[in-house]
Amino acid sequence: MQGKTLEQLAEHVGGKVVGDGSVEISAVSTLDQAGPGDISFMTNMKYIGRARTTKAGAVIAGSEIETDAALLVADDPYYALMQIVVQLHGHRRHKKTGISEKASVAETAEIGDGCNVYDFVTVSDNARIGSGCVIYPGVFVGPNVKIGQRCILYPNVVVYDGTAIGDRVIIHANTTVGDDGYGFATQDGIHHKIPQIGCVIIEDDVEIGANCIIERGTLDETIIGRGCKIGDAVAIGHGAKIGPGCLLVPQVGIAGSTTLGHHCLIGGQVGVAGHIKIGNMVRIGAQSGVSNDIPDGASVFGSPAIDGSLGKRAYSLIRTLPAMRKKVRALQKWIEKHDTDLESE
Amino acid sequence: MQGKTLEQLAEHVGGKVVGDGSVEISAVSTLDQAGPGDISFMTNMKYIGRARTTKAGAVIAGSEIETDAALLVADDPYYALMQIVVQLHGHRRHKKTGISEKASVAETAEIGDGCNVYDFVTVSDNARIGSGCVIYPGVFVGPNVKIGQRCILYPNVVVYDGTAIGDRVIIHANTTVGDDGYGFATQDGIHHKIPQIGCVIIEDDVEIGANCIIERGTLDETIIGRGCKIGDAVAIGHGAKIGPGCLLVPQVGIAGSTTLGHHCLIGGQVGVAGHIKIGNMVRIGAQSGVSNDIPDGASVFGSPAIDGSLGKRAYSLIRTLPAMRKKVRALQKWIEKHDTDLESE
Amino acid sequence: MQGKTLEQLAEHVGGKVVGDGSVEISAVSTLDQAGPGDISFMTNMKYIGRARTTKAGAVIAGSEIETDAALLVADDPYYALMQIVVQLHGHRRHKKTGISEKASVAETAEIGDGCNVYDFVTVSDNARIGSGCVIYPGVFVGPNVKIGQRCILYPNVVVYDGTAIGDRVIIHANTTVGDDGYGFATQDGIHHKIPQIGCVIIEDDVEIGANCIIERGTLDETIIGRGCKIGDAVAIGHGAKIGPGCLLVPQVGIAGSTTLGHHCLIGGQVGVAGHIKIGNMVRIGAQSGVSNDIPDGASVFGSPAIDGSLGKRAYSLIRTLPAMRKKVRALQKWIEKHDTDLESE
Repeated sequence: MQGKTLEQLAEHVGGKVVGDGSVEISAVSTLDQAGPGDISFMTNMKYIGRARTTKAGAVIAGSEIETDAALLVADDPYYALMQIVVQLHGHRRHKKTGISEKASVAETAEIGDGCNVYDFVTVSDNARIGSGCVIYPGVFVGPNVKIGQRCILYPNVVVYDGTAIGDRVIIHANTTVGDDGYGFATQDGIHHKIPQIGCVIIEDDVEIGANCIIERGTLDETIIGRGCKIGDAVAIGHGAKIGPGCLLVPQVGIAGSTTLGHHCLIGGQVGVAGHIKIGNMVRIGAQSGVSNDIPDGASVFGSPAIDGSLGKRAYSLIRTLPAMRKKVRALQKWIEKHDTDLESE
Repeated sequence: MQGKTLEQLAEHVGGKVVGDGSVEISAVSTLDQAGPGDISFMTNMKYIGRARTTKAGAVIAGSEIETDAALLVADDPYYALMQIVVQLHGHRRHKKTGISEKASVAETAEIGDGCNVYDFVTVSDNARIGSGCVIYPGVFVGPNVKIGQRCILYPNVVVYDGTAIGDRVIIHANTTVGDDGYGFATQDGIHHKIPQIGCVIIEDDVEIGANCIIERGTLDETIIGRGCKIGDAVAIGHGAKIGPGCLLVPQVGIAGSTTLGHHCLIGGQVGVAGHIKIGNMVRIGAQSGVSNDIPDGASVFGSPAIDGSLGKRAYSLIRTLPAMRKKVRALQKWIEKHDTDLESE
Repeated sequence: MQGKTLEQLAEHVGGKVVGDGSVEISAVSTLDQAGPGDISFMTNMKYIGRARTTKAGAVIAGSEIETDAALLVADDPYYALMQIVVQLHGHRRHKKTGISEKASVAETAEIGDGCNVYDFVTVSDNARIGSGCVIYPGVFVGPNVKIGQRCILYPNVVVYDGTAIGDRVIIHANTTVGDDGYGFATQDGIHHKIPQIGCVIIEDDVEIGANCIIERGTLDETIIGRGCKIGDAVAIGHGAKIGPGCLLVPQVGIAGSTTLGHHCLIGGQVGVAGHIKIGNMVRIGAQSGVSNDIPDGASVFGSPAIDGSLGKRAYSLIRTLPAMRKKVRALQKWIEKHDTDLESE
């Protein structure tokens, strides 16, 4: 952590200083907790009150807001925030230990230069780990797994046999990659296991949250596309293909054989049925349930999911059902009084 | 992996060859990826286009479909697929290591013949593991746990004290069995823990996905019945009894003290409330919320869950609420114009 | 486990005996499984039939119910049950081993008196663990983590760097505390990771279920307030603040930067959106979806969540939509017949 002037930070992010650019900034903090040596940010007008009263030395914002702090105005203040957190704090440092003697590395496994493989890690037969990786305690790397360069596997991550992981992939603690898909053939009430002979491919620059599950394909691959970011407790079914750049927030479930295009945004607790096709840049609102194909660029909401703007309106009207029911009954009564022939239903 | 002729495979599964039965088949693959030495399958007419253009040497199907590949027609093509995947690929092989010196096995624990207990496994006091089991790295087997024969516990599975597991049970990575149920007695705003003195019983031939949680009973048993197959990230509450042969797909939650009959089919992300009784062969649609008893054989859908066929229709009509509201208002207006006496509501 | 007379138990919990107070009780059991030496309980009139036919020597109840067993009548029978389970069975005992030689404890870490640190545990640099803690196999305690006194961390719990845990905290197996929040700044379709420099604070007397995830704050703290009890598979987003005494049952998701007041009750599979404020003593029904602030004391239900009593009624009327639609159409038809000028919609 090294201090910078606000001017230097503004230059670094291509932003504009409003106020005193010479203020020294050594850390990033929230509007509420920041002090004179800190920079904070405001990307949501909901927090304008806090921006006004912040004790921060400087605030990153998208426009000239009212505050006593010096301002760093950036076109994309959230992106500027990211750059400044990286600049002032950096990413997590990992202890340099090399390969621990308490790790269990198969003779046929290959581990690249500069890796840190901590205690109680298992690296199985024929696994290959690229250079610069960090493998935390309790991680299991199965047979024939390939991991690229500069990946981080946090504690107790389990990677089943045959999984292929790209470069710069981050997987958080207790996540399972490559377990058997949910595949059974039922006869006479007995569910017979179908060997799941497919695998999982995780492309470059993917980050996966904690306690997620990515099943292996039954016959082919489950794919997590380049640059996808997956939240905690997400479950991806066997043979699903998630296109590049998708954002799946926590507790999402994608069933087997379903494909997502690129840059989809999937809200919390969404469920997507199996064997369907979600287009590119599709947005699915939180808790939605999707069981049909969705075209490129569409936005959907609700369970069952429908067009997003209609959906927000339609689901919000469920609250009117008691009143509507009463009204319809009253109308019917009126009509019955005026026409005894009305077909009653 | 050893090759067979299509004729041999058809005999093995009791199916019929249409086309060249002498074609050599060495692997199972998808319609898209299969080559001349592969057999593929089509159980869903949605994929008939792919079946027509597949390069597979043979295709398993339920009837004579149009394709250039030789056909293996079977009454239950999915079951035939299962048999052929087992025949050509087999189930996962586990390295034979015996009991690792890096495992931690209590002196009072008993481990049967032919078990593989890998590194960093803990087997606690008085635990008993039957013959032929495979216990992957990082697994914790608590005190007084009993595990039957030929079970597989994948990495980092945790089995709390007193759990009883039958034969041929498979538990995937990072799953927790037997943690304390959610039981607290609240007084004056303080939640006091009720010791959970019950246990978990998992019967024969159960398979449990990754990152699941099966709570122990408060006083009695949580039971997972014989032959149940449970998907990833499923949570089963304390004292629940799941009947034999049930299928619970990923992210399902069953609250405490609820019982399910046999061969229920529970869709993804379903929630079932506590202290209720679900009958035999009940089907619950994805994302449903169930808080009342359900009789044998019923099919339900929705949150709150209602009869399945009504449910599919009723929930799909939520989208019509804005239009319906408008219509009802128009009707009311018309009537008001014609009768100022109509009781307004 | 030591026997007591019913009289002694009644005294212990401040209850009243109805029937034979001299009956010897050595265990607590369910109404169905209890025998003459057992005490059972009935707190839900749904089970009155079982109470009538129980073979239990005694039954705890809130009033004088009809049963052959002796009765222990207590104002709060569930609280009495808790006291008696503790009295007769106690809480789980943990093997006394001290600090295992197979654990990996950093030289700069401090571990208090009377701790049991089992095999394959990692305690990282500058971690401090208070006296009387039990750290099960496979647990990872990250750098600079502080843990109070008499905490229990079950197997394979992962605690990331900088987390602060109070006294008497219990965390069940495979739970992750302090993983990076879901924070990315997107530019030109690339999602850039924002270093998550905040942390997690877990206050005294919290219990967290298995396979939960508590993300660290982006800049500040994620807080789990004193005495909260959290079920299995719950996901708490970065920077969320959960007030004291809240109950979050399994599979709940609380998104980032949201605050909950004290003693909220959050039902199973509920989703709460980010950046909102839930008041004190709020009750949220199972599977609800909350995306707006909720005032103190409110009860809400449904997805989207609305006032609880309206919600129960309104959502239950979804089932009437097919009939209502038909009725509205019939009414419209009638009116059209009587007024061709009615604006059709």
